[in-house]
Amino acid sequence: MIKKLIQEIQKKNAPIVVGLDPQLGFLPEKLLKASMEESGESLEAVAGAILAFNKAIIDATYDLIPAVKPQIAMYEQFGIPGLVAYKETVDYCHKKGLVVIGDIKRGDIGSTSSAYALAHLGKVKVGKKSFAPFDEDFATVNPYLGSDGVKPFVDVCKENDKGIFVLVKTSNPSSGEFQDQKIDGVPLYEKVAAMVEEWGEDTREGQYSNVGAVVGATYPKMGEELRKKMPHTFILVPGYGAQGGKGEDLAGFFDKDGLGAIVNSSRGIIAAYKKEEYKKFGEEQFAQASRAAVEDMLTDIRTALERR
Amino acid sequence: MIKKLIQEIQKKNAPIVVGLDPQLGFLPEKLLKASMEESGESLEAVAGAILAFNKAIIDATYDLIPAVKPQIAMYEQFGIPGLVAYKETVDYCHKKGLVVIGDIKRGDIGSTSSAYALAHLGKVKVGKKSFAPFDEDFATVNPYLGSDGVKPFVDVCKENDKGIFVLVKTSNPSSGEFQDQKIDGVPLYEKVAAMVEEWGEDTREGQYSNVGAVVGATYPKMGEELRKKMPHTFILVPGYGAQGGKGEDLAGFFDKDGLGAIVNSSRGIIAAYKKEEYKKFGEEQFAQASRAAVEDMLTDIRTALERR
Repeated sequence: MIKKLIQEIQKKNAPIVVGLDPQLGFLPEKLLKASMEESGESLEAVAGAILAFNKAIIDATYDLIPAVKPQIAMYEQFGIPGLVAYKETVDYCHKKGLVVIGDIKRGDIGSTSSAYALAHLGKVKVGKKSFAPFDEDFATVNPYLGSDGVKPFVDVCKENDKGIFVLVKTSNPSSGEFQDQKIDGVPLYEKVAAMVEEWGEDTREGQYSNVGAVVGATYPKMGEELRKKMPHTFILVPGYGAQGGKGEDLAGFFDKDGLGAIVNSSRGIIAAYKKEEYKKFGEEQFAQASRAAVEDMLTDIRTALERR
Repeated sequence: MIKKLIQEIQKKNAPIVVGLDPQLGFLPEKLLKASMEESGESLEAVAGAILAFNKAIIDATYDLIPAVKPQIAMYEQFGIPGLVAYKETVDYCHKKGLVVIGDIKRGDIGSTSSAYALAHLGKVKVGKKSFAPFDEDFATVNPYLGSDGVKPFVDVCKENDKGIFVLVKTSNPSSGEFQDQKIDGVPLYEKVAAMVEEWGEDTREGQYSNVGAVVGATYPKMGEELRKKMPHTFILVPGYGAQGGKGEDLAGFFDKDGLGAIVNSSRGIIAAYKKEEYKKFGEEQFAQASRAAVEDMLTDIRTALERR
């Protein structure tokens, strides 16, 4: 699956991913109102509005981008109807030819991690039929439980040509509380990084393996070092835009060919119409504002890569 | 909420929780067949069988136990229908007066952790109405992202009188890979334990706070030490039974009053009818086998506590 992601990135010259993290406050009033008129003040109404919102943004941007990253928490908060909208978003993105990175940050032990892996990247058998319950292409995984927690995901990836991104150094301000703690002089996140290289070893498709890493855009120096220490690990980089990461900070996350990393922006793209610079589009044209924000992000990152 | 959990434990003299982690292989054939006759070979059929299985076990054991711990991964693997069965299980347990610990192991940054917290322990507003999407009483939380990842859960707990259990030292064999690594001579899990005490500080209801910890039954010495180091932290103890933990190993997890911990058994209870010692019940009487297994577990743990 990493091969497919890289091909799509090259085809579109776009090492970026759009984070589909719809919050209630991001939805244009008109959209929510229309959905409530149909389904009342209900979780179903919100879920319907989220799906319409996502589809409009996907329609306006899919030709520019290789991948999307829906954040499942933003759907889970609206219960079952929210999760139905998540699944429908995944399916819609597949129809548009996009690679889908499920930002699910799951992780447990043995058979429980297997269950999560099957849910999101695999298939379950019922009698003679088999079902792919959520069917993302990649999923993010939390490593705190160690190898027993991660390997079941790797096994399911191998069987189904899928991939994962393991949390190594997250983008949030307090990520250092545990991740930066030094063990024999080496920060914990580097220990995790070394394990990520190992977990991915027999899933390589060319330079990179199907076991990637999450490293926040907000920590560019660490990103640069980790790029060197994980030569076979593709990096998913959250934290661009709203969280403070800029294109010029990100050059170090990429390899000499301008590959090896994919940068995510969520709010900065999907809620672009609320920002001063895209206000001219107005609420009506929210999806066009998202397209303009994608174009600007692409220019920012391409320029940073050319200037190296 | 921790106050309610403790009251229920005392009322039933039962510091145990039944893990509702239904796997396909645990379901009696007859139950699955009946459900398939109704809904075909489908995820809905499995979900229907799971719900019937859970209800039978709950009916047969609820008078003996204070709480249940459904493992959401085991439902998520059956997609949306599986998650509907999860939610219906939570609701059914509430009707029977049980405390529900959602074993969800979620954790993310800022607004995303808030979304998970609202999904499982809080309420979301839609227009003038509000909804509690999954409505568990406690949830398990992964601490790898640090305080920004955990505090949104604590905030939602305060507003809704709910609680969490943060992963400190998990029960699996490779939990030590990261959790036991020493930082200035202190293992990571103790650093996390110290933070758990801090996160819980203003959520205390008597001795214990609404921020608990997960410490595996498979590491009894660490449990004993952590009991002393986290005087205000209730411990959820997985790993009893199938994973190898025994009653005699667990005395150290409890305080001098025999409180401060609650021991989980999943497979050992819900799939008891498959074990040699309960075979006499047969598949037909699977729920009665579960009741017998609960009684034996209670005797084992009560004896261990009396012998101290």
